[in-house]
Amino acid sequence: MAYGGYTYFDAKYEPAKDDFIVLIWAKGTAPIEKIAEGIASESSVGTWTKLKTMNQFVWEHLRARVFKIHNVGKNAGFIWIAYPYEHFDSKNIMQFCASVMGNIFGLKELEELYVCDIKFPLKYQKQFPGPKAGMEGVRRYVGTEKSRRPHTGTIPKPKVGLNPKEFAHVAYESWIGGLDFVKDDENLVDQKFCPFKERFHEVVNAAERVEKETGRKVLYSPNISDRYDRMMDRMDYVKAHGWPMVMMDVYLMGFSVLPMALEQAHRYNLFTHAHRAGYAAAHRGNYGANFVIYEKYYRMLGVDQLHIGTGVGKMEGGPLLIKRLHQVADEKKGPAKMYLGMLDFEWAPHIKPIFSVSSGGMDAGKVEASVALHGRDVVVQAGGGIHGHPLGTRGGAASMRQAVDAVAKGISLPAYAKTHKELKMALDKFGYVSPKAVLKELADEKKNCKKMDAEVLRQGRGGMEKYS
Amino acid sequence: MAYGGYTYFDAKYEPAKDDFIVLIWAKGTAPIEKIAEGIASESSVGTWTKLKTMNQFVWEHLRARVFKIHNVGKNAGFIWIAYPYEHFDSKNIMQFCASVMGNIFGLKELEELYVCDIKFPLKYQKQFPGPKAGMEGVRRYVGTEKSRRPHTGTIPKPKVGLNPKEFAHVAYESWIGGLDFVKDDENLVDQKFCPFKERFHEVVNAAERVEKETGRKVLYSPNISDRYDRMMDRMDYVKAHGWPMVMMDVYLMGFSVLPMALEQAHRYNLFTHAHRAGYAAAHRGNYGANFVIYEKYYRMLGVDQLHIGTGVGKMEGGPLLIKRLHQVADEKKGPAKMYLGMLDFEWAPHIKPIFSVSSGGMDAGKVEASVALHGRDVVVQAGGGIHGHPLGTRGGAASMRQAVDAVAKGISLPAYAKTHKELKMALDKFGYVSPKAVLKELADEKKNCKKMDAEVLRQGRGGMEKYS
Repeated sequence: MAYGGYTYFDAKYEPAKDDFIVLIWAKGTAPIEKIAEGIASESSVGTWTKLKTMNQFVWEHLRARVFKIHNVGKNAGFIWIAYPYEHFDSKNIMQFCASVMGNIFGLKELEELYVCDIKFPLKYQKQFPGPKAGMEGVRRYVGTEKSRRPHTGTIPKPKVGLNPKEFAHVAYESWIGGLDFVKDDENLVDQKFCPFKERFHEVVNAAERVEKETGRKVLYSPNISDRYDRMMDRMDYVKAHGWPMVMMDVYLMGFSVLPMALEQAHRYNLFTHAHRAGYAAAHRGNYGANFVIYEKYYRMLGVDQLHIGTGVGKMEGGPLLIKRLHQVADEKKGPAKMYLGMLDFEWAPHIKPIFSVSSGGMDAGKVEASVALHGRDVVVQAGGGIHGHPLGTRGGAASMRQAVDAVAKGISLPAYAKTHKELKMALDKFGYVSPKAVLKELADEKKNCKKMDAEVLRQGRGGMEKYS
Repeated sequence: MAYGGYTYFDAKYEPAKDDFIVLIWAKGTAPIEKIAEGIASESSVGTWTKLKTMNQFVWEHLRARVFKIHNVGKNAGFIWIAYPYEHFDSKNIMQFCASVMGNIFGLKELEELYVCDIKFPLKYQKQFPGPKAGMEGVRRYVGTEKSRRPHTGTIPKPKVGLNPKEFAHVAYESWIGGLDFVKDDENLVDQKFCPFKERFHEVVNAAERVEKETGRKVLYSPNISDRYDRMMDRMDYVKAHGWPMVMMDVYLMGFSVLPMALEQAHRYNLFTHAHRAGYAAAHRGNYGANFVIYEKYYRMLGVDQLHIGTGVGKMEGGPLLIKRLHQVADEKKGPAKMYLGMLDFEWAPHIKPIFSVSSGGMDAGKVEASVALHGRDVVVQAGGGIHGHPLGTRGGAASMRQAVDAVAKGISLPAYAKTHKELKMALDKFGYVSPKAVLKELADEKKNCKKMDAEVLRQGRGGMEKYS
């Protein structure tokens, strides 16, 4: 079925090793075969009508190929497209996005368009550095590379409004209570009530006091997110004062700045904590792109810690999706999972694992379930679950650390709470989420994955909802 | 109805002059009053539970206020929220987005979340420069400040693959045929088959030949979109060679780079053409934000030409929406339009109008209808509609220019085509879209706007579909 006079569908095409593979869900007001042609055309070399200026080189070497379509009814379905490597300005991520995740969202005949996943060829991955420190670097700094226990973190609350001294006091109490890590909230940068530099110095002083008093190494990620020049000024400032970490809002930064900011962080040997505010506007719903695509870029470009959801807290993301995002963050490869709309993945050998962060509506009572899902290579992070603890921040931090210690020892939270007051108070107030439901869902996945694939292929993107 | 122990709803609150007003559509698994509280909480000072660390200053001075909720059924509705000015790091657009269009998209209890519009207080607008040249600057350069005719433009096709000489030949033919403006396609930057610098020189040489041969001034916008450093290198290069214009993919750049890139373009006196690849992933569907919000930022930050859709071509965007986007681009103020989900707007006096670009599936036969919608202050731009013309690029360009001349003289296209061969061939091949349907829709809007408002308030976001 031609679009604009050309046919991009080729069932016999076998993707080349260096092709980019894109899996798309689409639904519209035309047959899905026609929609697939429109997408391949608009994202590569075509337009809505036949051209006097088309030539053989362009058509043979640069066009996208639709090599598989799976209908779900007449006007909807999954589409697999291969793009040749030479199509792209290979170091230019914006150019890649403008092709593959750009104009296509605007095509009139669409009612839904979701870019489910992209498989990046190894040749493409090779030009990106991956994390410099990565999970292991952060673990070595804190001293958990042997114990492999989960890290614990917090976001001082209220999200905005504390002054620098108040903020630093909350940070101090959090660390003293037992936490490893404190971060700024995503909407706190350099407001008048809490200027960045003042806050930074107060918090770093508090961290140094904690290190002196306890002998432990603790981390803080000041939020440098802003326009590029101010972001780099803040990074320089942090480096100049000998602090080892910064936080960036990676989704909002976009790919015009993220590669450069991370290169600088790597040169400076700074750990990077990546918040992802706004990602869900793309990730959820009927127009957009799965977060896994962004996650792959974040690992290729080299963040060290990345928010990927809890599976059990206040934010979206079911256990199976979160498990998969965790695997993409720190494993070498993984199989296709059609029920999550995901292609198989394989990382270039030089790209180190990143530390997954489980955050959003967490508290001590949810730690066991979240770790059952994530495994122990995770930063469990709570805001309200710590600063809303009946004993306040220090007690909340203690409850969180006790929960992690329990999990590391293989003891269930209710049992450990019998001898740990702060944990008991947290469970009494926030409740206890048993890991059973999560473990059952993971076990069911193993057993039923083929059935789940078939179900989603029958129902389309709507069928994914229960898994993602 | 409290969320996390606090109540953000205050029906008696009257937004202050400097407040930011945000209009949101939401639907979820809880009563809309509860959802509204969750959104206000997560986007300002709260979280999911009551905090030991909350204080009076934060609560009184920094929290968001939900001052109006319009239910559409139990679990859905429109929500009006006011944010105090001091809440924000006022020059930091990323911080603003992280608050108001950030984490909220991820809240678990949501099924839909669409940020319909934001009203930016004049105090906020004052710190941004607005366009330096703007529409009038571009018109003066081309020499149309008196005639006020629409400008004409093209994108050489195929989108990618022509080599620099082929590309420049297409540009030359386009200008000689009568066009004012040539732009790179959004997915063409610096690929091997068409390196940026070589293309730039070939095209600029072609432009100079055209100017010598015709005495007309013509424009070309080379696509500099990339990571920030390479983008600035290309801007330096363009400036160093005395060329007056660049193109940027503004949506993909994000707000970490756009303000800086535009400041540099202003210092260099470069016109900026803004493509918007990817915007529709946010703009369409059930999670995201209306393009009008981005458009407001683009005008505040100061682009000169901006794609806003055709109303009649291959891309999404109905006539009423496009008309409104056009008004936001070049008028001083406008009323609220609930059927488009839009608040009233008012521009700070120093912020100049930008030149709207009507592009995407255009051809000569659609010019009359598109201009009926946009008015004459528009750049009508066609790709396939020019390079797919039976006589090729030069004939296609002539057909486009003839269509614009006809419209400028108030003559309908079929009448003008009787004495203009290229236009006649375009109408024969691509068809003629009469302006009647567009004009009727605009007339109906004037007559029925209150009814349309009521209809959308009854039906919610789904009811907007026929208007947007």
